[in-house]
Amino acid sequence: MKIGALEAGGTKMVCAAGDEYGRVTAERQFPTETPETTLPQILAFFQEQGIEALGIGCFGPVDLRKDSPSYGSITSTPKRDWQNCRIVPYFQEALTIPVGFDTDVNASMLGELFFGAAKGLTDCLYLTVGTGIGAGILSGGQLVHGLLHPEAGHVLVQKRPEDPYTGHCPYHPSCLEGLASGPALEDRWGKPAAALPPDHPAWIWEADYLGQALTGYIFTLSPQRMILGGGVMNQPQLFPLIRQRVKELLGGYLQAKELENLDTFIVPPACGGRQGILGCLRLGYGARQEG
Amino acid sequence: MKIGALEAGGTKMVCAAGDEYGRVTAERQFPTETPETTLPQILAFFQEQGIEALGIGCFGPVDLRKDSPSYGSITSTPKRDWQNCRIVPYFQEALTIPVGFDTDVNASMLGELFFGAAKGLTDCLYLTVGTGIGAGILSGGQLVHGLLHPEAGHVLVQKRPEDPYTGHCPYHPSCLEGLASGPALEDRWGKPAAALPPDHPAWIWEADYLGQALTGYIFTLSPQRMILGGGVMNQPQLFPLIRQRVKELLGGYLQAKELENLDTFIVPPACGGRQGILGCLRLGYGARQEG
Repeated sequence: MKIGALEAGGTKMVCAAGDEYGRVTAERQFPTETPETTLPQILAFFQEQGIEALGIGCFGPVDLRKDSPSYGSITSTPKRDWQNCRIVPYFQEALTIPVGFDTDVNASMLGELFFGAAKGLTDCLYLTVGTGIGAGILSGGQLVHGLLHPEAGHVLVQKRPEDPYTGHCPYHPSCLEGLASGPALEDRWGKPAAALPPDHPAWIWEADYLGQALTGYIFTLSPQRMILGGGVMNQPQLFPLIRQRVKELLGGYLQAKELENLDTFIVPPACGGRQGILGCLRLGYGARQEG
Repeated sequence: MKIGALEAGGTKMVCAAGDEYGRVTAERQFPTETPETTLPQILAFFQEQGIEALGIGCFGPVDLRKDSPSYGSITSTPKRDWQNCRIVPYFQEALTIPVGFDTDVNASMLGELFFGAAKGLTDCLYLTVGTGIGAGILSGGQLVHGLLHPEAGHVLVQKRPEDPYTGHCPYHPSCLEGLASGPALEDRWGKPAAALPPDHPAWIWEADYLGQALTGYIFTLSPQRMILGGGVMNQPQLFPLIRQRVKELLGGYLQAKELENLDTFIVPPACGGRQGILGCLRLGYGARQEG
């Protein structure tokens, strides 16, 4: 089937056409300007491709409640031009094809499920650590939505006593995103994450905050694996530090062979950075199956 | 259908016979002694009742993985007599009927789903705050199991600086169960929770710890409602304090009408203490439908 995929991000829109097996035949990117300028460019691309369904993985918060009048909209984003943007209805009305819609992180979770590190699993968490921190969650083989959708980047963490940073989140004095996102790292240390050397103490703190959050996710969700992506995770030294911290915090309480070696439990994505767009193909495929 | 229900607890075993509509026709309790003395008593009760299926909600940890050789067993419980007790195979072999099996808290979650405060919901959390703290979780209409099962009572919380108590959990210096369970309250304050007056500062602290954990569950699971039961919650003053603390910690970040009034979002159970046994009836019914 010819499927369109739109990975809608805060800085760029990645568009692709492909099939449900993850084979991409065309791809284009547009900067995220305003809905008025950006959406027609995307639409033109999809019209050229002759797609039969579309999947959108979108920055948020988004309204995923199918019975809601604002279903398929971006809601209270700080990007003011995009507030209340009816992104799903826009494409649905213009293309008259089924449109699947979910958070960007749920799309990445889906990409990893079909093509990456979550193949064959039923319970998994995909965490992105970048400009923001968010999680896509698979529970019992289904993506978690709930009342709104998980906002797992905003879980509280315990600030290290020696950390003077007041946090980057305007809502929470010590949530994970506020203390451990890319902008928080840059703010605290005066240079971007990528410019901090691997032996910088920043990484110990980062692993502590991420380790605290991951431990909470493990106790709450009982995942079979956790996948950590996003720009900040492009630091190979981070993975062993995080695994060590999670091991300490679990304290040996949970007994399962999967938890004995955290090298296979806390892992990087396995789609070479393409988990988001591949997941969007699956969202489109799913919408077609349902419709 | 005539269904047996066994709410297997650390101090008592509650047995009932009834139907899938929650109508109980017989009930008996036995103290939890050893498997050798207690299980035959329970078996005799169920044999008298002529049940067609059995549901067991069990203290844990338990093995819920159907493909595991130890499926249906209690695993690493501190109650040594019950370690590795093959409770499901015992009843399955003796009664030759379908046996449904889950954690005690998932059974309570199920009871509330069919007969109580979670009717019509797809995403909900049932937390028991008593001798231990644990959560049964419903996500997308399904009980959450995952790798093992949630152990959400062990999430980390931030200890109040003025709290000198070292915690009751042998695994974690500051997990929710270690700081906020019934035994932790008794240990810290020198008297049982029920003997502390409603204006005692203990309840502010308790609401803080519970509020921290609930906030984490909200960000991670996005539930439509959270139900708080267990002995410690038999303190009417606790609910408003917890709601206040959750409201503060959410910081206004999540926008949903369900979160505007936490009186209907954080609630007591609505089965009059019978959510566990009623949920076990549904577990038995579910096993019959599957089998």
